[in-house]
Amino acid sequence: MPSILIVGGSDAGVSAALRARELAPEAQVRLLLADRYPSFSICGIPFLLSGEVDGPSHLAHHSARDIEAAGIDLLPGHRARSLDPETRVVQALTPGGDTRDLRYDRLLIATGATSVRPPIAGMDLPGVFTLRWMDEALAVRRWLERQRPERAVIVGGGYIGMEMADALTRRGMAVTLVEALPQILATLDPDLAVEIAVTLRNEGVEVVTGVRTERIRETSEGLRVETGAGSWDCGLVLVATGARPETTIAAAAGLETGHHGALRVDRHMRTRFPSVYAAGDCVETWHRLLEDWTYMPLGSTAHKQGRIAGENLVGGAREFAGTLGTQVVKVFDRIAARTGLHDRDARAAGFDPLSVDLETWDRNAYYPGAQKLIIRVTGERRDGRLLGAQILGHQGSEVAKRLDVFATALFHGMKVVELEDLDLSYTPPLSSPWDPVQMATRHWTWTLTHAGGSR
Amino acid sequence: MPSILIVGGSDAGVSAALRARELAPEAQVRLLLADRYPSFSICGIPFLLSGEVDGPSHLAHHSARDIEAAGIDLLPGHRARSLDPETRVVQALTPGGDTRDLRYDRLLIATGATSVRPPIAGMDLPGVFTLRWMDEALAVRRWLERQRPERAVIVGGGYIGMEMADALTRRGMAVTLVEALPQILATLDPDLAVEIAVTLRNEGVEVVTGVRTERIRETSEGLRVETGAGSWDCGLVLVATGARPETTIAAAAGLETGHHGALRVDRHMRTRFPSVYAAGDCVETWHRLLEDWTYMPLGSTAHKQGRIAGENLVGGAREFAGTLGTQVVKVFDRIAARTGLHDRDARAAGFDPLSVDLETWDRNAYYPGAQKLIIRVTGERRDGRLLGAQILGHQGSEVAKRLDVFATALFHGMKVVELEDLDLSYTPPLSSPWDPVQMATRHWTWTLTHAGGSR
Repeated sequence: MPSILIVGGSDAGVSAALRARELAPEAQVRLLLADRYPSFSICGIPFLLSGEVDGPSHLAHHSARDIEAAGIDLLPGHRARSLDPETRVVQALTPGGDTRDLRYDRLLIATGATSVRPPIAGMDLPGVFTLRWMDEALAVRRWLERQRPERAVIVGGGYIGMEMADALTRRGMAVTLVEALPQILATLDPDLAVEIAVTLRNEGVEVVTGVRTERIRETSEGLRVETGAGSWDCGLVLVATGARPETTIAAAAGLETGHHGALRVDRHMRTRFPSVYAAGDCVETWHRLLEDWTYMPLGSTAHKQGRIAGENLVGGAREFAGTLGTQVVKVFDRIAARTGLHDRDARAAGFDPLSVDLETWDRNAYYPGAQKLIIRVTGERRDGRLLGAQILGHQGSEVAKRLDVFATALFHGMKVVELEDLDLSYTPPLSSPWDPVQMATRHWTWTLTHAGGSR
Repeated sequence: MPSILIVGGSDAGVSAALRARELAPEAQVRLLLADRYPSFSICGIPFLLSGEVDGPSHLAHHSARDIEAAGIDLLPGHRARSLDPETRVVQALTPGGDTRDLRYDRLLIATGATSVRPPIAGMDLPGVFTLRWMDEALAVRRWLERQRPERAVIVGGGYIGMEMADALTRRGMAVTLVEALPQILATLDPDLAVEIAVTLRNEGVEVVTGVRTERIRETSEGLRVETGAGSWDCGLVLVATGARPETTIAAAAGLETGHHGALRVDRHMRTRFPSVYAAGDCVETWHRLLEDWTYMPLGSTAHKQGRIAGENLVGGAREFAGTLGTQVVKVFDRIAARTGLHDRDARAAGFDPLSVDLETWDRNAYYPGAQKLIIRVTGERRDGRLLGAQILGHQGSEVAKRLDVFATALFHGMKVVELEDLDLSYTPPLSSPWDPVQMATRHWTWTLTHAGGSR
């Protein structure tokens, strides 16, 4: 059986290792882990820092013991330094500072992503953090515990920014969130993102959009964040402005890169070198609707790609079916979810989209506790095909899994009108005879027909 | 434009009327309503009787005013007595006791269903009720308010039985539920139904299964329900042993009946008579997986069939896509949902099913408030096709809409293994990188492969 080497012990790497061993119990599988936290949930970090989750070990999808029990040779603290695809050797730096040459028959590069470091002066000051790996998370936690800052500035209004605003508010801190773009949550349409900004403000978070952060300074009191629209004093700065693929050794070895500098792979997760696969946040991602490559570093995708790579490393031929960009975030008690393309994306991709909103109840309106949902359906005017959906709602309204009905419909290329045919579950405390998903698609069809769907 | 007559003002009838007028605003649409409660939510009755919902008007999906505002000529208190498909006349009894001949160009029969009246002696005693129409619901409410019974016996452990056990317990009554079959909730597998029985018992409901109710007597104290395994004294008896199609005038006019005596229609909701359509709880229902006709009186289905009939009454050609038997019920804080075929159904239909359970968390296990889900996946051993799913969980675990991911997958005839490819939403407070739905399908595939799926 081939000797398999995996570089990277987060979602994609560990998924691949487990899957390879499951399918080929006699395969030798070695996994290089740069730190000491295999398979930990990057998405869980905000909940560690909010105090909702106890210790880092709780954030692991699989413990080191589980991984080793599956027969995987886990090499913690081993940082890959170079790759030679000709001789099939990865050179790694061991925890002791030695170098070690590791020969492989098949290699998986699962080096993940690192935080974008925007050109802000003062990024290296104590008290300024980016947040992606566990070491960073633990550094933030130490800072919070030792310095007990009362105010924080978060630079960046994406998912991590949202969740950290929630987390730090929960800890009793005053939080200012500064986003350079005109809106937070660029994955949502601007007017829906405004609803989440309102939620943040109602919870006491100061939200500042369209303002570029220029510099962070040390003051006698702590830190000062200077922007084009004023400055904020605080004791902690989190810079959460996105992720970029970690491809250093792969690019140096001659692997091709594409979107956002991510590694090029095919849908079998193969690179252009025989026997070298790549998966997770370091690779380009096939988009099922765009029918093109994109960059979308998401945990759910990394797990899928890792599993597929794991199959193919031991002789499988499974293809990645593609992402739809399905995402959900919880901000205090508000839930925002989206899948597929929104209007702007769709237009950019050459579609002729129509987006229609419906505000309705999450269950029969007469049932106690009914809460409002806003559902936006995006469809193609010419052939009626579903292109995407966005839902805003509250906890308890099954927002995420309602969105998944759209995601499943999108997966199958359904027309908007066809969603009326789905046999979805109904009981008055949880839905209505037409699920809100279907009310929204009916309203889309009605609008296209009656209102002419004018632009 | 044709003159359209609709007999029946519940879900299917009103849906059809509204859809016909929406598509053909000049059509004459008359709707015969036997009582004075158009478009009321049959499924909402238990919540009216629990006191969670105020008055009957809150249970209406559409008010009489809305229906009339849509240009529909609503004839309340008009009971159809006969139909002549040759002369195209329906004779109705007016509220004043006169008869009235109503001519139509196209007719929709949407007479719904009535409660099954099992052969129990004493069914007609005061304090013994069936529960389907609003008059019956209001009669129960009056009885509850005037007699203030402390104990109730519910005969029948289906959805209405469950919800009424919950409702009456909520009112402070002591409830005994007697089911003749060996299990409650026959739409679930027996061992899953037991879990719901445990929930009922934990809430103080006495659950008796496998016991036939023989007789109800009046005593000096109230009522006594006598069964093959003892008798229960109480002040209220609800008999909820299912529904049968109301087809009296249709059958007398020569329309064909099939399963459970329901009217035969095609997938356009047409009967064998030109210009006579039928929809809702009075008709046979096309089952998408069985590819055969069945009887499944559900509100969600009645709304769909009504809408399709409404389109076709004004010249459309839309087909009913079929039911999957998707259903959900809330029993106290427990949710039970099912779609497709369970093992027994599948075997009876000639499939070779394998059913596999997974017990897992509704969100990342580390996130506070995580609750257990039990997911049972049923698939065909020979070709791996998904046949059905059952989920048990709690409120707040998005059980119903997780089930709908299965329902949407079933609609498209997906193989179990293909559900791994779905791009479902993930954030730690609401799910895991592989949604529990996908963990369960993975476990099914693993079981088929590794455990040989032995019977």
